[in-house]
Amino acid sequence: MAANQSMLVVSAHSADFVWRAGGAIALHKKNGYRVKVVCLSFGERGESAKLWRKGEMTIEKVKTARREEAERAADVLGAEVEFFDLGDYPLRVSDEALLRLVDVYRDVQPAFVLSHSLKDPYNFDHPLAMHVAQEARIIAQAEGHNPGQKIVGAPPVYAFEPHQTEQCEWMPNTFLDITEVWDAKRRAIECMAGQEHLWEYYTRVALQRGVQAKRNIGITAARNIEYAEAYQRITPAVVGDLS
Amino acid sequence: MAANQSMLVVSAHSADFVWRAGGAIALHKKNGYRVKVVCLSFGERGESAKLWRKGEMTIEKVKTARREEAERAADVLGAEVEFFDLGDYPLRVSDEALLRLVDVYRDVQPAFVLSHSLKDPYNFDHPLAMHVAQEARIIAQAEGHNPGQKIVGAPPVYAFEPHQTEQCEWMPNTFLDITEVWDAKRRAIECMAGQEHLWEYYTRVALQRGVQAKRNIGITAARNIEYAEAYQRITPAVVGDLS
Amino acid sequence: MAANQSMLVVSAHSADFVWRAGGAIALHKKNGYRVKVVCLSFGERGESAKLWRKGEMTIEKVKTARREEAERAADVLGAEVEFFDLGDYPLRVSDEALLRLVDVYRDVQPAFVLSHSLKDPYNFDHPLAMHVAQEARIIAQAEGHNPGQKIVGAPPVYAFEPHQTEQCEWMPNTFLDITEVWDAKRRAIECMAGQEHLWEYYTRVALQRGVQAKRNIGITAARNIEYAEAYQRITPAVVGDLS
Amino acid sequence: MAANQSMLVVSAHSADFVWRAGGAIALHKKNGYRVKVVCLSFGERGESAKLWRKGEMTIEKVKTARREEAERAADVLGAEVEFFDLGDYPLRVSDEALLRLVDVYRDVQPAFVLSHSLKDPYNFDHPLAMHVAQEARIIAQAEGHNPGQKIVGAPPVYAFEPHQTEQCEWMPNTFLDITEVWDAKRRAIECMAGQEHLWEYYTRVALQRGVQAKRNIGITAARNIEYAEAYQRITPAVVGDLS
Amino acid sequence: MAANQSMLVVSAHSADFVWRAGGAIALHKKNGYRVKVVCLSFGERGESAKLWRKGEMTIEKVKTARREEAERAADVLGAEVEFFDLGDYPLRVSDEALLRLVDVYRDVQPAFVLSHSLKDPYNFDHPLAMHVAQEARIIAQAEGHNPGQKIVGAPPVYAFEPHQTEQCEWMPNTFLDITEVWDAKRRAIECMAGQEHLWEYYTRVALQRGVQAKRNIGITAARNIEYAEAYQRITPAVVGDLS
Amino acid sequence: MAANQSMLVVSAHSADFVWRAGGAIALHKKNGYRVKVVCLSFGERGESAKLWRKGEMTIEKVKTARREEAERAADVLGAEVEFFDLGDYPLRVSDEALLRLVDVYRDVQPAFVLSHSLKDPYNFDHPLAMHVAQEARIIAQAEGHNPGQKIVGAPPVYAFEPHQTEQCEWMPNTFLDITEVWDAKRRAIECMAGQEHLWEYYTRVALQRGVQAKRNIGITAARNIEYAEAYQRITPAVVGDLS
Repeated sequence: MAANQSMLVVSAHSADFVWRAGGAIALHKKNGYRVKVVCLSFGERGESAKLWRKGEMTIEKVKTARREEAERAADVLGAEVEFFDLGDYPLRVSDEALLRLVDVYRDVQPAFVLSHSLKDPYNFDHPLAMHVAQEARIIAQAEGHNPGQKIVGAPPVYAFEPHQTEQCEWMPNTFLDITEVWDAKRRAIECMAGQEHLWEYYTRVALQRGVQAKRNIGITAARNIEYAEAYQRITPAVVGDLS
Repeated sequence: MAANQSMLVVSAHSADFVWRAGGAIALHKKNGYRVKVVCLSFGERGESAKLWRKGEMTIEKVKTARREEAERAADVLGAEVEFFDLGDYPLRVSDEALLRLVDVYRDVQPAFVLSHSLKDPYNFDHPLAMHVAQEARIIAQAEGHNPGQKIVGAPPVYAFEPHQTEQCEWMPNTFLDITEVWDAKRRAIECMAGQEHLWEYYTRVALQRGVQAKRNIGITAARNIEYAEAYQRITPAVVGDLS
Repeated sequence: MAANQSMLVVSAHSADFVWRAGGAIALHKKNGYRVKVVCLSFGERGESAKLWRKGEMTIEKVKTARREEAERAADVLGAEVEFFDLGDYPLRVSDEALLRLVDVYRDVQPAFVLSHSLKDPYNFDHPLAMHVAQEARIIAQAEGHNPGQKIVGAPPVYAFEPHQTEQCEWMPNTFLDITEVWDAKRRAIECMAGQEHLWEYYTRVALQRGVQAKRNIGITAARNIEYAEAYQRITPAVVGDLS
Repeated sequence: MAANQSMLVVSAHSADFVWRAGGAIALHKKNGYRVKVVCLSFGERGESAKLWRKGEMTIEKVKTARREEAERAADVLGAEVEFFDLGDYPLRVSDEALLRLVDVYRDVQPAFVLSHSLKDPYNFDHPLAMHVAQEARIIAQAEGHNPGQKIVGAPPVYAFEPHQTEQCEWMPNTFLDITEVWDAKRRAIECMAGQEHLWEYYTRVALQRGVQAKRNIGITAARNIEYAEAYQRITPAVVGDLS
Repeated sequence: MAANQSMLVVSAHSADFVWRAGGAIALHKKNGYRVKVVCLSFGERGESAKLWRKGEMTIEKVKTARREEAERAADVLGAEVEFFDLGDYPLRVSDEALLRLVDVYRDVQPAFVLSHSLKDPYNFDHPLAMHVAQEARIIAQAEGHNPGQKIVGAPPVYAFEPHQTEQCEWMPNTFLDITEVWDAKRRAIECMAGQEHLWEYYTRVALQRGVQAKRNIGITAARNIEYAEAYQRITPAVVGDLS
Repeated sequence: MAANQSMLVVSAHSADFVWRAGGAIALHKKNGYRVKVVCLSFGERGESAKLWRKGEMTIEKVKTARREEAERAADVLGAEVEFFDLGDYPLRVSDEALLRLVDVYRDVQPAFVLSHSLKDPYNFDHPLAMHVAQEARIIAQAEGHNPGQKIVGAPPVYAFEPHQTEQCEWMPNTFLDITEVWDAKRRAIECMAGQEHLWEYYTRVALQRGVQAKRNIGITAARNIEYAEAYQRITPAVVGDLS
């Protein structure tokens, strides 16, 4: 279904792509996609509490540890990962970094893009990552940006699931069945040694979304769904059949 | 893609299904679907101005004329049409009529359902039709309603395009390419002799949605789209691939 | 500016038109409009607490007292008032009552219509009154309803100010300067002997809206505004100049 | 904290109060509240699939089974339960039933009220129950309804958690720590023999809300929270301190 | 009605003011307004695809071509146009540029202001232009900014029509009848040689808005409207009459 | 109730904390809180019209006058006030200023935080202040920011009342009874010599909110409320009792 296709994930911190899109990554990789992940920061200040509680810690040590965890998880899922190392809490994205992301778009030519929710009152780095993912996509479509390069088409954009969904005004309109790759996602999750308290939390998220996905195809449907990821598609679909 | 599948359209007045979903009907019919249209009323009071301006008119004569137009259009599109004759301006739906629609659901077992927008400040019959389409779907899913009948699954529900979209808070998230069946839709539109002023209006709607659909797949995409219909899908999709 | 024009107010209870639209009534009356007020109920159960606390009270006595207050206020403002006496808490509007309101529309041919906010979690009679005001307007536009009568055009609909505006999701987009008729509105307010605790409350509302109206034309504008009423226009304006 | 206080739960179907508010019931009961639950229907048609799949079933048998389950659960939680038996799928609430609920309000004089979300595209019985809960509250406040009875004050209204929260546009703004009564809630859940597939689902809901509640008081707070229920308070709070 | 009045248009790219506000410009010019247009960029990267596809193109050549087209269109419409040349895809507005726009406000003293929609997921330059138009307006109102200059009043702000209106959450609440100046708008549109594919698109937009405007004044109204532009007024109106 | 507790107010201009949160400050101070106010600017350009109209004025003189007024008001209310002097119209907040605010959070360890509404189309400095108040709070929670310092918990965030509430999409969900400290708030208001036109305006605001607060506890409640402030709590509450 996907020969020669690719997908792009824009992750604010180095672990976000695992909790929130690990199933999509593993599943599409399995189906032949090239998967590219961009981590804008390592989450070194705001999402590494356990590491900081160890003695003798420095920013560089935390970043190194976070990078290693992310690389191990990416390996498990089958993704290439690139770190922009822009800093977190607060994440700040210069125009130079934005154009670097445009270059990624032009190189990867993604069939679709995953990033964070449009709002997140608990974490301003997250919606900024999504904003940048969208702005880079728009620039990558412009013929007058680096003329001569191949422009990108109109890859659909999805917001993956934030932590407290309702507070983020995030609305799942797309469920992805990840049952067949759940084991890989769980193994990737377990690479995040510094956030072990979240392993069971995100396992339960996958189970709940699985139940809801099943309900949305009808309890009488043949397909069994145990684990799912939920997404908010924010660009319209163009289809040839409505079923 | 659709052998033995069927679709259901719930239309407040007898012409709505033509302007708003004629392309979807013709396209899915061509692809092998059974198409069932339920017209809750004939639109005899509120949408038959031209007929009333003729002399010697009665409600029964208007209903007869509207029925004939709708049947001709349904023939062109390939749909079966059933008239509930519940009256319009205002439309009122008794529980008896609601359960009749449940029976249709159980009989048709639709793969998806099309009806009006959730709000329409210009026409209260329209959102009522959608409300009833949803409520009947829910009842048709209940094992305890007429036990022994085959319950329906969870067919996606779409709101087709209302007249003044923004006032109706209607948000198109799905574009259907109807280029290959446009001629049939136009012929069906021309069956509506009493509303000739709308022929060009809805032709322009289809052209505008075609341009937008094209933009949403990217201007570099191979597929050419000239005419489209836009829909608001109001139930989540469950998918195995995000592209 | 308004010779031969008329306006219509649809009031859930017999005092609402005074607190919420008294300035608009007095101002347009002064400018030559015919003003028609329909009170769907007397507010006899839910808005007559002071009367009920008197001894020996009955529903009929309360209704009589409320009618007299409303008639005195209407006289002060220059309005004709018609009571539908449909009951309150809960207000219920039969199709017969709806069609009676359609007859009022056809008779009055209003240039614009005022009613309650679209939502009100504190009082379900209010949004029902607005719903009915809108539905009757739509039916009054239909050529097939009582053919031969003169249909109504597309009179703008405004929601007047509810009690707790933000809870009602009511958004004022139109301020009406009522400075020149404030005295009449205050006298009409004082006809409501049973709700004396609200006199100062609604005087302050008028002062606050006056300050806001002044701010919205610019503090350097020549026009002085001391008292205003705020409205949410819910139908689009069609204009020939944007200033 | 609550001597002589009471609370009211308005449940569309006979099991809703258990899944969605069982913790609140057990906790407040433990703290001295009288707890009253009104079940508008038994959920006999739409939420009893497992029972219907048994042979030889009738509506009356299903209702009896559902009543017994609900009564056992209510016993475990410490609630009085009253069944209005209005039917489900669709639930319809006559004015007579509405006024019966007003009588309950006047009798119970609740300190707060729990019911369903304001919207639920998957189940129209749910928002109707909330609508009725609000409307009965408003009527119970009216001095002119059954004059002489003690009117109710302004009890806060909360929407408990629906099944697919985001689709229901439900926003949790209040988390209730139910850790100390979790065992009772789980036992009440297990009374619902006909819906065993939901036991683990709602256990996971309680765990997720527990994690979120903990996050919302700060991870450094002394209080440990393992299980929580989430609510959307839809009426404003009046307080003497903001912390 | 408009002697000595002026209007201001803030356009992100050099063609936006033509497609989206050309009718308003021509109409108000005809009625005696001074019309000032500020183009923040030339749209040289993102909206000049056809130019870039020619051989031997450079940014400067594209900008020159875009400037000439815009100037020709402004001449046809009767507008003065000023180019800020801030770059596009992405547009970035420094505080220096913001204050230059404040100077324009103070000089022009506009009776009203037109700019882009508040949101546009397809084009982030557009909402930025509107943001800057609003922020400059606020600063131009401040007595402490360049004390001694004449401050501006409170000119209404309108968002003109974006490309995919519903995706932009743009709500038209004001229709402007441009029938009498349509020919000028069409001639201005035809100055945009590089975007010929949009000529018919925006002609159809004007026809559709004309039909809707007509409907919003009532089909029985004497005034005929063939072409219209739609606007979202985002500041409240202060009026002396509600019809 | 509040020994050793503190609260933080983030005010865009030097008078905002008085009009909008003066009651909360006085009340909590009276109850033992330490109160810290941060004024991001003096409002020297945009909110000092009266001062500028005096002859011989300079920015520094205006700032000095505004500082003195704010300090006098803070004294009356019992608050410590710190001025960041970042400029207004437009306010701009560098990362350096943001981190200075983070230091304040770490020092004050507030039990709750008050700032402006999330939107304000009349004043972009206001939502920026709230944005910064939230972002600083998030950074102050991060263990990796200045490791070794005591991080803050999850203090609730409230938006105080903006000028035109509905235009700001601000929804009051919390009323604070300030009757017992009203005299202090009025005295603090009267320190604002340059904005005397607002004294009565904000007195009326307090009276209106008092009436509404009373209504929201029920007219039969024992507690009398004459003056209140309204707040929008934007973070969820975690409670042990729902009444």
